Amino acid sequence: MKEVMAFIRTNKVNDTKRALAEVGFPAFLCRPCLGRGKKSIDTRVFNLAIKSGMVPVSRAGESMTEGDRLIPKRYFNLMLQDDQVDLAVKTIIRVNQTGNPGDGRIFVLPLLESHGVRTGNCSFRTVARKEE
Amino acid sequence: MKEVMAFIRTNKVNDTKRALAEVGFPAFLCRPCLGRGKKSIDTRVFNLAIKSGMVPVSRAGESMTEGDRLIPKRYFNLMLQDDQVDLAVKTIIRVNQTGNPGDGRIFVLPLLESHGVRTGNCSFRTVARKEE
Amino acid sequence: MKEVMAFIRTNKVNDTKRALAEVGFPAFLCRPCLGRGKKSIDTRVFNLAIKSGMVPVSRAGESMTEGDRLIPKRYFNLMLQDDQVDLAVKTIIRVNQTGNPGDGRIFVLPLLESHGVRTGNCSFRTVARKEE
Repeated sequence: MKEVMAFIRTNKVNDTKRALAEVGFPAFLCRPCLGRGKKSIDTRVFNLAIKSGMVPVSRAGESMTEGDRLIPKRYFNLMLQDDQVDLAVKTIIRVNQTGNPGDGRIFVLPLLESHGVRTGNCSFRTVARKEE
Repeated sequence: MKEVMAFIRTNKVNDTKRALAEVGFPAFLCRPCLGRGKKSIDTRVFNLAIKSGMVPVSRAGESMTEGDRLIPKRYFNLMLQDDQVDLAVKTIIRVNQTGNPGDGRIFVLPLLESHGVRTGNCSFRTVARKEE
Repeated sequence: MKEVMAFIRTNKVNDTKRALAEVGFPAFLCRPCLGRGKKSIDTRVFNLAIKSGMVPVSRAGESMTEGDRLIPKRYFNLMLQDDQVDLAVKTIIRVNQTGNPGDGRIFVLPLLESHGVRTGNCSFRTVARKEE
């Protein structure tokens, strides 16, 4: 089993929820968070670009990641079988890819056990153990 | 070392905190989150069941997980030695098991290192390395 | 690749952000959370200490972690290459170490894959696989 963590734009939450449910992954967790990527933008250049009309102001807050600024994002969390990870990752990319900086990132972590509280049932990691 | 992630009902937070402290795990982290499980309910059937009195209305919000709806949950996070995981998982299940859908899930992830900021001490994963 | 999770004091967020950016890790995620450490304090002793002037009242909320009390903390999350983890951990400890209980903890988890949503690029764990 694996954990899929996706950090996406706040305005993509509903599309992502719908797309994940459609491909068979209705179970997930969603949280607001603050984050930023690697790209650093010189604010002087940026402000000039807005003033000159090269960059629409409305997109400013979205693609700007300079200095100490953290941007509100949404954090999605899915717990999946190993063979489901690929489809989930592709689905999230398909829905969230706009081509602009700030589209987000997806991380995959190993999961050892999964317990259902209601039933007490436990699934162990079997496939992943061989894999590594 | 392992990380235990538990997603439980919001009204079980205090019971869970107390139970975990009683069995020797006073150190943890708690966060609100939104989530949903795998079960999908046809709202037409559900509304009919409420109307006919088969399902009490008060439980509606709790056990209903259809469509785009995400339910407020609490996220617990414990960092434990490998031999402590079993007791922690059993304790969380004991306190949170009501038998109704929405009781929650517990996930166990591998942890490589743990550093104390105050002391600068570091614990590495030793047992888990043999295990896998 | 590895995930670094750090739980630090709320008033250390800006210093930590700046220090991480300075050593070359500008990309991270930050969230408020509630947590507590292992140390348990007898409130009677504690209140006596405050009354007698041995402990300043202002530090009370910070170093007190008895019973059911959870303390507001900030959660930092960085996704790094294996050889970057050491520098990141040392930087977080350097900025956050006050010597008082409640300085926080840092955890390191294995990461299997990282996908960029904008580019669709994927990095797999290669170094870590050999290591374990």
